[in-house]
Amino acid sequence: MRMRKKKNLDVRFERCASVMVSDPRAVRGKWREKFGNDNPIRLEIGCGKGRFILETARRNPDINFVAIEKEEGALIMATEKAIAEELPNLRFLSFDAAALNEIFAPGEVSLIYLNFSDPWPPNRQRKRRLTWRAFLAVYDEILEEEGAIFFKTDNQRLFEWSLGELCQNGWLLQNISLDLHKSDYDNIMTEYEEKFSAQGYRIYRVEARKRIEKNLLK
Amino acid sequence: MRMRKKKNLDVRFERCASVMVSDPRAVRGKWREKFGNDNPIRLEIGCGKGRFILETARRNPDINFVAIEKEEGALIMATEKAIAEELPNLRFLSFDAAALNEIFAPGEVSLIYLNFSDPWPPNRQRKRRLTWRAFLAVYDEILEEEGAIFFKTDNQRLFEWSLGELCQNGWLLQNISLDLHKSDYDNIMTEYEEKFSAQGYRIYRVEARKRIEKNLLK
Repeated sequence: MRMRKKKNLDVRFERCASVMVSDPRAVRGKWREKFGNDNPIRLEIGCGKGRFILETARRNPDINFVAIEKEEGALIMATEKAIAEELPNLRFLSFDAAALNEIFAPGEVSLIYLNFSDPWPPNRQRKRRLTWRAFLAVYDEILEEEGAIFFKTDNQRLFEWSLGELCQNGWLLQNISLDLHKSDYDNIMTEYEEKFSAQGYRIYRVEARKRIEKNLLK
Repeated sequence: MRMRKKKNLDVRFERCASVMVSDPRAVRGKWREKFGNDNPIRLEIGCGKGRFILETARRNPDINFVAIEKEEGALIMATEKAIAEELPNLRFLSFDAAALNEIFAPGEVSLIYLNFSDPWPPNRQRKRRLTWRAFLAVYDEILEEEGAIFFKTDNQRLFEWSLGELCQNGWLLQNISLDLHKSDYDNIMTEYEEKFSAQGYRIYRVEARKRIEKNLLK
């Protein structure tokens, strides 16, 4: 049963080959060539079923997007949606967020989206959180000088902790929202977000910028 | 009428002379002498009717507290409560928060409480907010190296903005709570806080520490 499911997935992924990057390590430092233009490159780490990144790519044809998801069941749903319209500025891949510097050269990325990342339980498993300092160090490496992380979540504890972790590790916090859906931010929802906000949960959001002198003086 | 009220206030303040500091400029650099011990000194800026600082002083006899309030109507209520028990570690005064460095020497203060500070409308009047960068610079000057600001408010916009302002001006954010009354923090409520939390409003809280290398490495 497990084998059949896996085989079935393989077949489905083969059909989505044109929207996927099968050997991302080979593209390191050459992503602009890959996209065939000099537009900025943004990542979503953990794109789930892809709703957010598809709509974001549609609205921003002059920006390139790379959507990363390690859960195959979610990734196949995202890629199957994408294959229907084949946006030239959007590609998908499966990779470990802790090793993103193996597939992106320093400064190659302009922005990173973290949407509703798995919160992991407090303290004991904080090192698995995508806003843990070791991940932040990787993001810092691949982001350009004026790069930023856009982070949103419905998890209060994760957000409280992440604000501290970002600030303590030298990131500038900007445009914090503690109730995103009641703010005037032009928000694009994820599947998860739509479901949970409909149940009355608050959505929290922050933009974290690399701390460079220029930003400090703004 | 106004004159009578004022005269009446003067009489009441005279009765509270023993818990007040009438010439705080003269005490600059000599607060430990004033209290007659070497205990740390903490401030509350905007103590209102004094409930928070009275209870905090009662619970912490080995710490000295200075409560500041510029609204006379509130200050007299705080001092009249204080006169009944005359805590040796608590004194009151009226002063402008922007000029605190005129009454405290550099490093003379160990901690500053900002509780439910007036939020002021966004943007246009942000310079009046007690977490505006000019105030932060004064706090930075009078706080000791490991000093901190403990800030709480029910005002979402003020809190969102203050987190950014603190971080962007080099303060480390720690122990953020986005729903204080549902956290396990041993909280002492202000009069205002009791009233508004009873109506279901969330209370937000953050501890902001001066950014020194030691803190960064924690």
